[in-house]
Amino acid sequence: MIFAEVVGTVVATRRADGIAGAKYLLVEQCSHRGKGRGRYHVALDVVNAGVGELVMIAQGSSCRQTSLSDRKPVDALICGIVDLVDEQGQVVFRK
Amino acid sequence: MIFAEVVGTVVATRRADGIAGAKYLLVEQCSHRGKGRGRYHVALDVVNAGVGELVMIAQGSSCRQTSLSDRKPVDALICGIVDLVDEQGQVVFRK
Amino acid sequence: MIFAEVVGTVVATRRADGIAGAKYLLVEQCSHRGKGRGRYHVALDVVNAGVGELVMIAQGSSCRQTSLSDRKPVDALICGIVDLVDEQGQVVFRK
Amino acid sequence: MIFAEVVGTVVATRRADGIAGAKYLLVEQCSHRGKGRGRYHVALDVVNAGVGELVMIAQGSSCRQTSLSDRKPVDALICGIVDLVDEQGQVVFRK
Amino acid sequence: MIFAEVVGTVVATRRADGIAGAKYLLVEQCSHRGKGRGRYHVALDVVNAGVGELVMIAQGSSCRQTSLSDRKPVDALICGIVDLVDEQGQVVFRK
Repeated sequence: MIFAEVVGTVVATRRADGIAGAKYLLVEQCSHRGKGRGRYHVALDVVNAGVGELVMIAQGSSCRQTSLSDRKPVDALICGIVDLVDEQGQVVFRK
Repeated sequence: MIFAEVVGTVVATRRADGIAGAKYLLVEQCSHRGKGRGRYHVALDVVNAGVGELVMIAQGSSCRQTSLSDRKPVDALICGIVDLVDEQGQVVFRK
Repeated sequence: MIFAEVVGTVVATRRADGIAGAKYLLVEQCSHRGKGRGRYHVALDVVNAGVGELVMIAQGSSCRQTSLSDRKPVDALICGIVDLVDEQGQVVFRK
Repeated sequence: MIFAEVVGTVVATRRADGIAGAKYLLVEQCSHRGKGRGRYHVALDVVNAGVGELVMIAQGSSCRQTSLSDRKPVDALICGIVDLVDEQGQVVFRK
Repeated sequence: MIFAEVVGTVVATRRADGIAGAKYLLVEQCSHRGKGRGRYHVALDVVNAGVGELVMIAQGSSCRQTSLSDRKPVDALICGIVDLVDEQGQVVFRK
């Protein structure tokens, strides 16, 4: 999984096999310390992530392994909200 | 999912397991603000996207999760037409 | 799908789960106008593509969605022969 | 599979379809000789890898092919702890 | 599939869902003419490839489409040993 920060929302009313109740968030890829890299993706949110939070993004078929995204055409999923990253015994990110 | 703009059409009469009624569109990868990046892909269209529209592209096995693309050899799908992108509370793209 | 030009053939007699009758072609990634990029792949051919033709390549699990490639260890497939590419109303490639 | 070194831990209490007992480790991509490349990922650990160990990372749907990760939204897995790498008859990495 | 040269072996005694009898080889990505690119991967070998041979590597879920690798956490497989590569009618690689 890669790190990303939630930076916004994407609205798309016409969709393939619409996912009722799903929220598409705009996320910016980050370093493991939470620093943005200027690369943006759209990810489905199933954990109620909020703008400013550091999250983990799962890509590919792994995204469909939740009840909400099962059998849906989605290839990026927010699969966890990061509380803390420890690198070599040092906390390099804390929520 | 990544952002792309629909810029044209691709015609291919000889295909593997032809997808009746499917349209292959030429799309150009974009930033989340809709700026082209000069990278082109062919994507299957199931939402009737038109030239000039900003769309979301799903890649990989996720593309087969619609009734039209089920069990077809397709790896890029237009899965939504973007109406609005909000970044940090500011609208950075509006259809 | 990405664009590629068929530039040759690859012969491999010792293979995993040999695909009888399958032809491995050498393809060079191309722009949407058919210009080579100097990156080569091996792709399974199920549409009888010939050297010099512009084709569409599907990658990943999508490659196994034809009767010939079903359950085979192949990750790149020629899924269509391109006849015409239209960009913003202009024909930028014609077979 | 790619090489990576385990460099830390990632804590995420709010997750999609939480994997009980699973540990998310912070790993840094490495050369085959164990030299870090400065690119970090989060990978699920099912082999009890420890900080400082060189591991193999499997990506994509392959990650779900263990009893612990089956049907879970995870796209990077530590699938082995490297003991030794031999290149052209020379040991270039030993645990 | 991409081209690679077998350059060594990787030993990993602690693995996820160990694949009995499987051999992990160190491979270096190559051009279609067999020239190394300095990028190394670990690939499962099911065709008994030897050091110095040019091979084709299948990646992703395609790797699990052999009896030995079925349902195993492996994402790179040596799926064929290259005997000959023909480019525009010229033999550019011969074993």
